[in-house]
Amino acid sequence: MKLIDKINQKVKEGKTFFSFEFFPPRTEEGVENLFERLERMVTYAPVFCDITWGAGGSTADVTLDIAARMQNQICVETMMHLTCTNMQIEKLESALKEVKKMGVRNILALRGDPPKGQDKFEAVEGGFSCALDLVKKEHGDYFGICVAGYPEAHPDGIVDDPEQMQKNYWADIAYLKEKVEAGGDLIITQLFYDVERFLQFVKDCRSVGINCPILPGIMPIMTYGGFKRMTGFCKTKVPAELDAALEAIKDNDEAVKNFGIDLGVKMCRQLLDAGTPGVHLYTLNLERSALAILERLGMVDPAKIPRPLPWRHVPAGTSRSVEGVRPVFWSNRPKAYLKRTQDWDSYPSGRWGNSRSPAYGTLSDYQFMRRHTSSDARKEKARAAWGATLSGVEDVQEVFVKYVKGEVTMLPWSEMEGGCAAETAAIKEPLTQLNASGFLTINSQPRINGLPSTDATHGWGGANGYVYGKAYVEFFCSPASWASLRARLDAAPSVSYLATTAAGPTEGNMEADGVNALTWGVFPGKEVIQPTVVCPASFAVWKDEAFELWLSEWANLYEEGSESRAVLQAIHDTWVLVSVVDNDYVAGDLFKTLLA
Amino acid sequence: MKLIDKINQKVKEGKTFFSFEFFPPRTEEGVENLFERLERMVTYAPVFCDITWGAGGSTADVTLDIAARMQNQICVETMMHLTCTNMQIEKLESALKEVKKMGVRNILALRGDPPKGQDKFEAVEGGFSCALDLVKKEHGDYFGICVAGYPEAHPDGIVDDPEQMQKNYWADIAYLKEKVEAGGDLIITQLFYDVERFLQFVKDCRSVGINCPILPGIMPIMTYGGFKRMTGFCKTKVPAELDAALEAIKDNDEAVKNFGIDLGVKMCRQLLDAGTPGVHLYTLNLERSALAILERLGMVDPAKIPRPLPWRHVPAGTSRSVEGVRPVFWSNRPKAYLKRTQDWDSYPSGRWGNSRSPAYGTLSDYQFMRRHTSSDARKEKARAAWGATLSGVEDVQEVFVKYVKGEVTMLPWSEMEGGCAAETAAIKEPLTQLNASGFLTINSQPRINGLPSTDATHGWGGANGYVYGKAYVEFFCSPASWASLRARLDAAPSVSYLATTAAGPTEGNMEADGVNALTWGVFPGKEVIQPTVVCPASFAVWKDEAFELWLSEWANLYEEGSESRAVLQAIHDTWVLVSVVDNDYVAGDLFKTLLA
Repeated sequence: MKLIDKINQKVKEGKTFFSFEFFPPRTEEGVENLFERLERMVTYAPVFCDITWGAGGSTADVTLDIAARMQNQICVETMMHLTCTNMQIEKLESALKEVKKMGVRNILALRGDPPKGQDKFEAVEGGFSCALDLVKKEHGDYFGICVAGYPEAHPDGIVDDPEQMQKNYWADIAYLKEKVEAGGDLIITQLFYDVERFLQFVKDCRSVGINCPILPGIMPIMTYGGFKRMTGFCKTKVPAELDAALEAIKDNDEAVKNFGIDLGVKMCRQLLDAGTPGVHLYTLNLERSALAILERLGMVDPAKIPRPLPWRHVPAGTSRSVEGVRPVFWSNRPKAYLKRTQDWDSYPSGRWGNSRSPAYGTLSDYQFMRRHTSSDARKEKARAAWGATLSGVEDVQEVFVKYVKGEVTMLPWSEMEGGCAAETAAIKEPLTQLNASGFLTINSQPRINGLPSTDATHGWGGANGYVYGKAYVEFFCSPASWASLRARLDAAPSVSYLATTAAGPTEGNMEADGVNALTWGVFPGKEVIQPTVVCPASFAVWKDEAFELWLSEWANLYEEGSESRAVLQAIHDTWVLVSVVDNDYVAGDLFKTLLA
Repeated sequence: MKLIDKINQKVKEGKTFFSFEFFPPRTEEGVENLFERLERMVTYAPVFCDITWGAGGSTADVTLDIAARMQNQICVETMMHLTCTNMQIEKLESALKEVKKMGVRNILALRGDPPKGQDKFEAVEGGFSCALDLVKKEHGDYFGICVAGYPEAHPDGIVDDPEQMQKNYWADIAYLKEKVEAGGDLIITQLFYDVERFLQFVKDCRSVGINCPILPGIMPIMTYGGFKRMTGFCKTKVPAELDAALEAIKDNDEAVKNFGIDLGVKMCRQLLDAGTPGVHLYTLNLERSALAILERLGMVDPAKIPRPLPWRHVPAGTSRSVEGVRPVFWSNRPKAYLKRTQDWDSYPSGRWGNSRSPAYGTLSDYQFMRRHTSSDARKEKARAAWGATLSGVEDVQEVFVKYVKGEVTMLPWSEMEGGCAAETAAIKEPLTQLNASGFLTINSQPRINGLPSTDATHGWGGANGYVYGKAYVEFFCSPASWASLRARLDAAPSVSYLATTAAGPTEGNMEADGVNALTWGVFPGKEVIQPTVVCPASFAVWKDEAFELWLSEWANLYEEGSESRAVLQAIHDTWVLVSVVDNDYVAGDLFKTLLA
């Protein structure tokens, strides 16, 4: 979706908003860290995130890759910067084609900062002085285009002579007007620390007929050195009292950071009070300051952010945004699911039956596949969580019990750290008992019978609806435990189950082509939405992944030939993976059946 | 679906079953009467119905047409007889192609009775001695094939010489075995009145290796004359005590009929007790005796017949059987809906959004379009129900009030006679008030919040599920009434509505491409099923039909230029058609809003 449409919607609803800016890290580890951070920050519901374009073009491919993953894996509306600096036209063109293919619909069209070692921008031969022309020429109205505004004039035009400076400032505004007339539908400004200057800039823009939204670029001060470098590079005006206050605390890093947060809150409040529709935060790839400012402003409360679906919905405008159903198995591994289904031509929309026989892809090049074991540091962290050594099944069981209790916050079957989902709080007690009895749970949800769709924990899908869910538990257990449980399940009238060992085959009491709705919601003026389902065809794919994680994520932490490895290998080889649904979401008691 | 599969399923479930046979009426009025009867009889859930082939081929086209409509409009699994008598091969071939195209999957392959004036069958040149060969040769396994069995030998072989008779009997059984081996998978027998004879026939069939189900053909005695003619024509053995008992009452038509029912009950009970899986009733196109027998046997209770969907579901095996959603507007005019959608390539399956922009066909050649006015007798009946004359809107209103109260049993907006649907009993009071206040209701359903799916009145879809529905009312009202109601609806938080005059356009508070689920059900191991919806696109089509019925069905009853016509024409021209949904199916009170 184009940002201007999202922003106009927010304005129409009378809601202020915020957005985050990131830059492409220089190392692979850095990229991985950025995505961890994005995962967390996106839960605060920024109206969009943008990723800058590495100066000099060396990081072009990284930028493209990050933008595509932000849009499709992190599932946040993404804007990619596109800069002409030292870029050849062919490169720009292929970049645009690439992001278009990945469903990114927003471009920040820049002339670009001069590369290191140059003070001024020079167009390269065959390059463009402004990316905007290229975007419009080749892609018409497909992309939403954002352009840069300079409340203090472009750094190139910031000179000592006040008269010349005024000329340059108005020349920039005239140029900005040209850019807007050429198709720019949104303006984000250069960073500033003088709120009055920004407000005057907006007035000046309006005075010449620039009518699109103008978002202030806010860069929280995080370190004294960084602040000095950045304001020097951008020739940013620093109000005298700000300068004095910072000088006084410049040797106290913590004080500078807190000062930066205080200042950010003050600036944003002043901007929003003056009618600015939203704020754009230059995060410098860090989360603490940006989130602290938003929290203090009362603009974020993850517990109150409405979820359009129980899982994170892909932003509108991509082919994937029509996706309305997923199998429950991957609910703790959404990125693995997105990866495995990325080549599907169409996604199930409303009913799983619509794409009943999709071919799941492999995870061979799934970048997050080894995430708990992807570096020595991570391995160390995982061993700390799951045991330096394991001498038997009891030690494994202990890890699961601790996970349910919140004493351990990661498991091989969950991509995210942070422990069990909030939805499972209501069933923490029986889950603990189950795990203590040797049923090692990796996925679960409680029975939900018509809660308001705005319920803080279980709600999703917007206001005035009712949400439902069948109780669900998925676990590994020993063959002996399974034999006795199975008899109980067969005797339970309302239970559907699927079970298999690593070697297969799947057994159970579902139709082979059955699809069981697990979560659904009823909303005014809409068809019934049923976002998560259980189906045997998907379970057959999932079980390979689920068993494999015992080895790749956990056993690999230990030396070859060690007892710890042997314990996990034995579980992998002989235990049973079981998926159980209680269809009676009105009066059923799944845990009573399981724990009987 | 092939009958043998349906029958095997019943046998597997340990359920006995019944089926009805009809013949093609000779007049158009007769055909219309037959369909009225079929409508009623099919609600008793016969496992199938069959239609015989007119001897001599003169009624071939009628037979084809009736079979197609039974399968696709009446929505009952249909078997068509195919007889070689005086039929040319081209005619048989085109008949098979035709019924195949219409989704009929079952053929009773017969040699055929001799046409009138002939005593014995003679194959015509280019004809076939048995239709079975043709079916298998041209269509492989597409059709399920039923063949005829003769418990007393074929009439041609019924002779006085007992030894010859035995020979003929066994020759017929040998021929029957050939037919089964050639692809017949089900046997229905000639009528008989000697149950022991039938049971012996089954034993004899089994003794030579005929293992398929054998259904007894039961013809209830309805009139003395008819009984005599039929048993004479078929050379049926009539047990002496039956003959004596009938002779004693032959001049009392009512006594004969009741005797026939008693005898039918006795015969069927004896057959079922002996292990016969089901009974096939020769109805002679009449319903009373057949239904009475089944009721006395405890085999039918319309109130307890599980409905697979809230509307009558098209039998499996036709392209239409995947249909899982319909707009609510046509719920009292299902045949009009089937007619208008007969050319759709695919039907919405589970979600209306799947076929969001279907093009509705016209009703120009819809045979039932004028049903309340299709003959002078019907017009008379309609005038009796709706008034010999109308002197104002009050008289019209009175008709609607009486309809809701059950004092009038037909309305122009309902194809079926018999008054309001049982589902509306719960809202009879407020519906009466609404109509008395000038809101003339033509469709409605109460709010249903999770009733068991086996609920006698509201249940559908099978056992162990829960069904839901949003309160719905559709009505005509005067422009003044609408103006004041509209303000109340706009103030009601949970109400969706659509409204239009005959001239349009449609107004309301729904998204133009919105689809509102009105009825849905949640079942074990299944996705949520949502069979009825409201959508503005369908409403735009429906409203033309709804307004037009004021004129074609009602105003046409009266003389041109009459006051009665003027009253109805004025309503047609100026009143508003309104469709209202209360989305709060948990706690809403739609009638309070409407009647406030």
